[in-house]
Amino acid sequence: MEGLTYREIEEIQPKAGEVRIRLKTAGLNHRDLFVLTRHKPTDPPLIVGSDGAGVVEAIGEGVEGIQAGEEVIINPGLGWQKNSEAPPVGFEIVGLPDHGTFAEKIVLPAENAVRKPAHLTWEEAGVLSLAALTAYRALFTRGKIQKGMKVLIPGIGGGVATFLLQFAKAAGAVVYVTSRSEEKAKKALELGADKAIDSNEDWHKALDGEKMDLVIECVGAATFNKSLEQLRPGGTIVTFGASTGDEVTINLRTFFYGQFNLLGSTMGSAEEYEEMLKFVEMHELKPIIDTVYPLSEFEQAFKRLEEAEQLGKICFSIPE
Amino acid sequence: MEGLTYREIEEIQPKAGEVRIRLKTAGLNHRDLFVLTRHKPTDPPLIVGSDGAGVVEAIGEGVEGIQAGEEVIINPGLGWQKNSEAPPVGFEIVGLPDHGTFAEKIVLPAENAVRKPAHLTWEEAGVLSLAALTAYRALFTRGKIQKGMKVLIPGIGGGVATFLLQFAKAAGAVVYVTSRSEEKAKKALELGADKAIDSNEDWHKALDGEKMDLVIECVGAATFNKSLEQLRPGGTIVTFGASTGDEVTINLRTFFYGQFNLLGSTMGSAEEYEEMLKFVEMHELKPIIDTVYPLSEFEQAFKRLEEAEQLGKICFSIPE
Repeated sequence: MEGLTYREIEEIQPKAGEVRIRLKTAGLNHRDLFVLTRHKPTDPPLIVGSDGAGVVEAIGEGVEGIQAGEEVIINPGLGWQKNSEAPPVGFEIVGLPDHGTFAEKIVLPAENAVRKPAHLTWEEAGVLSLAALTAYRALFTRGKIQKGMKVLIPGIGGGVATFLLQFAKAAGAVVYVTSRSEEKAKKALELGADKAIDSNEDWHKALDGEKMDLVIECVGAATFNKSLEQLRPGGTIVTFGASTGDEVTINLRTFFYGQFNLLGSTMGSAEEYEEMLKFVEMHELKPIIDTVYPLSEFEQAFKRLEEAEQLGKICFSIPE
Repeated sequence: MEGLTYREIEEIQPKAGEVRIRLKTAGLNHRDLFVLTRHKPTDPPLIVGSDGAGVVEAIGEGVEGIQAGEEVIINPGLGWQKNSEAPPVGFEIVGLPDHGTFAEKIVLPAENAVRKPAHLTWEEAGVLSLAALTAYRALFTRGKIQKGMKVLIPGIGGGVATFLLQFAKAAGAVVYVTSRSEEKAKKALELGADKAIDSNEDWHKALDGEKMDLVIECVGAATFNKSLEQLRPGGTIVTFGASTGDEVTINLRTFFYGQFNLLGSTMGSAEEYEEMLKFVEMHELKPIIDTVYPLSEFEQAFKRLEEAEQLGKICFSIPE
């Protein structure tokens, strides 16, 4: 948490094509922890944070279709409009290198201020974007989830994994989750998981030998090969995270005899963001909120995330 | 080569749905070397060999659409008809557990005896099937090759790799290959490769930093990570072999930030076999023959394959 401070800076005016938003809420992500390690003391000061929601209060030249007073949610992806195999060169995420959402106000391209879904509270809207977009691309664009598919989500608990569970259930899949925490497993069952197993158990036994059409992996080294072993022939594993370590050793022969697919995924395009919002509205899905902190208590919030104590998202409320 | 002998056995009669073929030629594959290691001295005697071509000489009950005297080529896949993500349970390849093609005659399901393409000699037809089908599924079904794509084939020389080169060029791709052998690299250029680099060089430098849409990997441990490094964001690597070792360590973070795809492939269905034959006929492609041995000289042939001296396929001619 070294180098993090909470202080006044000068108000920024929106340039052509930009809007300024008075933020009501913001959401904490693992990315914010990474940004802290990447930002050097010699770099210019930076406001971290990728997720947020609020009200448009100033509009730059040439911006159409958006009005002051409009309630908006922020798409944190900068420069990735149409869906594509990979983001274009120059793609960035709000909160590095440009200022982010842990602030009273933010200036960003008008296209990144999207109409807030009416069924979400400010807290729910504030924590949705980065995790829900990541989950959406991993599950739909990459994993091509279909009704009736068997889907395994190792390491339930984090923001993205919780969206994965909600989205997969809403899409009509049979969803199994793993967790080291009995409490998180119990919560996952309440959220609709068809089975929640202890990560330390023998997965094959705990799943009664059932094989998966799709595994969505964000745990990395600690579970990756256990995940691979659960695939049916021709099954798919989507990887978008590696919180327990990046390096995994796989057996190619087992992999190609199994005709498996390993697909990498990160974030998503503006087009997928719109699709995700439609899906969330259609199924009236709401993010699971773990805790809401006033922005001034950022240290406690970062600590809770760092220690992986949360189930669901950590939210900041931003003072008027 | 222990346990390999060349001797007379009793002629087998085709049962209902089967045909007997008088073989003219057969083709040697790496699979035949594997089979030798898998077949135990206590197992019943087995005729090895998956590839072959010949003339139908006896027809079992209920077989329609095929006549005695017809010139046929053998599809070595048993029990995988329609294209699918993975072969059905019970899928086997000719030559284990059932008798194979290194013989004067073979009995097998009538659907596995397919009309021989007219533009191929008996030698060419005899070595086509297993390698060309494997290459076809890897490149077309799995790799979804398109005109203009940049394709890298590490380890040119083996039977499948040579078909990959021919098929990819016929499909309109830009094709780069690697080899440790100067002679094989030269031969690949003659066959149409756009660039042939030394496997021991720095690939990035040797390819002038060009990134690949598709890499088709059958080398395994020795080249796998070099292959991954050559992918463009969102690019695909198809793996179907691991002759230098099965175990590879990959970095998941690099993989998912790159939005890469790793797809396993083996063999192919009867549907893909028909498509492959059509493609071969349309483009008048011919297998590259390394050497033709009389079947009685099987020991020399196995030795040549084991020592990876060949470029293209090793063929057996079968005495009348």
